[in-house]
Amino acid sequence: MPHDDIRMRGFLRRTSLSDALLLLEPHSLPLEAEAVPVEQAWGRVLAEPLTAPINVPHFHRAAMDGYAVHGEDTFGAGRYQPLPLQVRGQSLPGRPFVGTVQRGEAVQIMTGAPLPEGTNAVLPAECTEQIGDLVNALEAVPPWRHVSRIGEDLKAGGPLLPEARRLRPQDLALLASVGQTSVLVRRRPTVDLLTTGSELLPPGRAPDGPQIVDSNSVMLPPLVERDGGVLLRRVRLPDDRASLRAALQESEADVVLVTGGTSVGVEDQAPALVAELGTLLMHGLSLKPAAPTGFGRMGTRRVFLLPGNPVSCFCAYDCLVAQTLRKLGGRSPEGPYRAQSVRLQTKVASQIGRAEYVRLRVEGTDAFVVASGGASILSSTTRADAFFLTEEQSEGHAVGEWITVWRYDA
Amino acid sequence: MPHDDIRMRGFLRRTSLSDALLLLEPHSLPLEAEAVPVEQAWGRVLAEPLTAPINVPHFHRAAMDGYAVHGEDTFGAGRYQPLPLQVRGQSLPGRPFVGTVQRGEAVQIMTGAPLPEGTNAVLPAECTEQIGDLVNALEAVPPWRHVSRIGEDLKAGGPLLPEARRLRPQDLALLASVGQTSVLVRRRPTVDLLTTGSELLPPGRAPDGPQIVDSNSVMLPPLVERDGGVLLRRVRLPDDRASLRAALQESEADVVLVTGGTSVGVEDQAPALVAELGTLLMHGLSLKPAAPTGFGRMGTRRVFLLPGNPVSCFCAYDCLVAQTLRKLGGRSPEGPYRAQSVRLQTKVASQIGRAEYVRLRVEGTDAFVVASGGASILSSTTRADAFFLTEEQSEGHAVGEWITVWRYDA
Repeated sequence: MPHDDIRMRGFLRRTSLSDALLLLEPHSLPLEAEAVPVEQAWGRVLAEPLTAPINVPHFHRAAMDGYAVHGEDTFGAGRYQPLPLQVRGQSLPGRPFVGTVQRGEAVQIMTGAPLPEGTNAVLPAECTEQIGDLVNALEAVPPWRHVSRIGEDLKAGGPLLPEARRLRPQDLALLASVGQTSVLVRRRPTVDLLTTGSELLPPGRAPDGPQIVDSNSVMLPPLVERDGGVLLRRVRLPDDRASLRAALQESEADVVLVTGGTSVGVEDQAPALVAELGTLLMHGLSLKPAAPTGFGRMGTRRVFLLPGNPVSCFCAYDCLVAQTLRKLGGRSPEGPYRAQSVRLQTKVASQIGRAEYVRLRVEGTDAFVVASGGASILSSTTRADAFFLTEEQSEGHAVGEWITVWRYDA
Repeated sequence: MPHDDIRMRGFLRRTSLSDALLLLEPHSLPLEAEAVPVEQAWGRVLAEPLTAPINVPHFHRAAMDGYAVHGEDTFGAGRYQPLPLQVRGQSLPGRPFVGTVQRGEAVQIMTGAPLPEGTNAVLPAECTEQIGDLVNALEAVPPWRHVSRIGEDLKAGGPLLPEARRLRPQDLALLASVGQTSVLVRRRPTVDLLTTGSELLPPGRAPDGPQIVDSNSVMLPPLVERDGGVLLRRVRLPDDRASLRAALQESEADVVLVTGGTSVGVEDQAPALVAELGTLLMHGLSLKPAAPTGFGRMGTRRVFLLPGNPVSCFCAYDCLVAQTLRKLGGRSPEGPYRAQSVRLQTKVASQIGRAEYVRLRVEGTDAFVVASGGASILSSTTRADAFFLTEEQSEGHAVGEWITVWRYDA
């Protein structure tokens, strides 16, 4: 055991969650831009502000079914004073009326069709009665009523969407409507997942003898997907320095997640390996049950050391990795969970000097502690409806206190 | 034009949104169950309650790195009163210690390893000092401290996950940990998307002459995906009765979305076709700007007629289709948007007898109306941060009034 090997001696120093997040900031800057087709850009983040290349609509467009008219010709019309107009033809979407419409004339028109030359309003179908080739106006419409005028939606050269916008379905529709084929968005971070542990069986196997199932490799991929990462590789490794070393060196991902072997036990190879192959920037988090968490850098790779215990792994992922992935992809660091204000029905004890990951069952606005701290009870995260972190300087919370929790079912 | 053709005569009767949702209920019952691999079950909805097939853990498991001991042997130990124990060997995850540990003895143990026979607690590494083949206990640990006992997480035969649970990442980990390979979940509804309109160009083309881009076929697929639907086919059709008829008859999807041709104009074929090929259950919604919305049934197919205008289409989708898809897939009908309480800085006028889809810009808790009603301004849905629906019986809202809106960036 070399002199600076911390294994079996406990963490030298534990970093607070807020300090860890500060430390991660320079490693969480948005990745470069890439072009993607508009139809695949849902949820992606714009890397530049966009302006409208054309007017939308690019012609005066009927906004209702009815008759294109000179609005002035309908002035004075009413149910008991029908004003007749001569019907000259039809204007349909994609098949406009050709010609100029004179005063006293009308053209039957459908929503979306171009307004014929000479007309300036649409008289809705329900305000008319057609008799042969005449149509009676039964109401008056002022000029430009029921018409989408040129550039009414978007003006050529005007703002379309702002930089850093996370694209919504309606944004994609807007981009398509101006003829855009692709957009520059932030590249999504790539992720390699290395789960270590000689006791681990692949998912799908039943626990057997001293062996348990590698559940982290089932839990982390959907979390990575949720936060906009792209999983490249998923590798299961024994507690063996050489295998982990090779896997770390082979990785070409932006982010490497190592689970297990991240603490200070004799078989915890990951921290020393990261220190040897790159820089170990943090090891030990003052957050229960995620103490065996670390972070380092190996060239362009950001390496997260996550505890092997599933609750600890989940907690460390949600508190540190989630927002790193979101920020790399240009997204807001805010998580996916919805806040809820609840009244504690159970006392929460907390040790000063470290935060605790408290899981709660929520009934209405009453909250009952399911587990606090404890790492090994995975079902505490599935029986709970919500969680919160105690403050490092808090001694806990009393029954009856109102606190804000984060719902898992967001 | 046959006698019962409502085209060019306006809607006979408009259904309120609440009545439309009631009408949809019998057509939105959860689909049948299907088995999917656990690793692909994120976000799916359990079709049955599950019980744990085994105890978890299935052996007494070390919860910390240190030494497996008889807790009683450490009683009285302290920093100034080290109690020596004989180290008999190691227990590692997947490689347990073989043999029985006697009083006065200890076994070095790592988190996750089976507790050797004869021991009942783990003395954490940081509470020890090892000298040769002896280890000094520097603190006392009571029996079962730092041990996950058999069945502590899950008891064989006990509840695992409830029916109708929408599976979270940690649920998948739990399922994997008990050796489950697949789960019975609700089938996801399949969707065909038929966009109609002779004026429509495929996305990627620039608007040209009287032609505009079919933006609905870009907006609807991500919405369908968001609500758990599986898009089967996306077909673009001219305003032609025979083409639409064939496409409707060919569809094998649970849900068919038809956009355009759904109103009461001369080219609006969809309502009459649904009435002819199946049953038109609703046509005309008292919701501005989504009036030209309809719903019918053709055998097992649920057919939604959505307005061609993109704002109207978006509004009708979100108000009717979204929750139908979610309920078919067994999910909660609640939408994806987050509620926010805001103070109106603009008056909202609303006509009694119909709801209106109001889009607002939100700054802090101040809300400014971007658009109300109007169907044609797609950018009103991209410039807005949130929306709300006015009540049908409301005359509107005054400046200064607090209302709840739904954020688009949920």
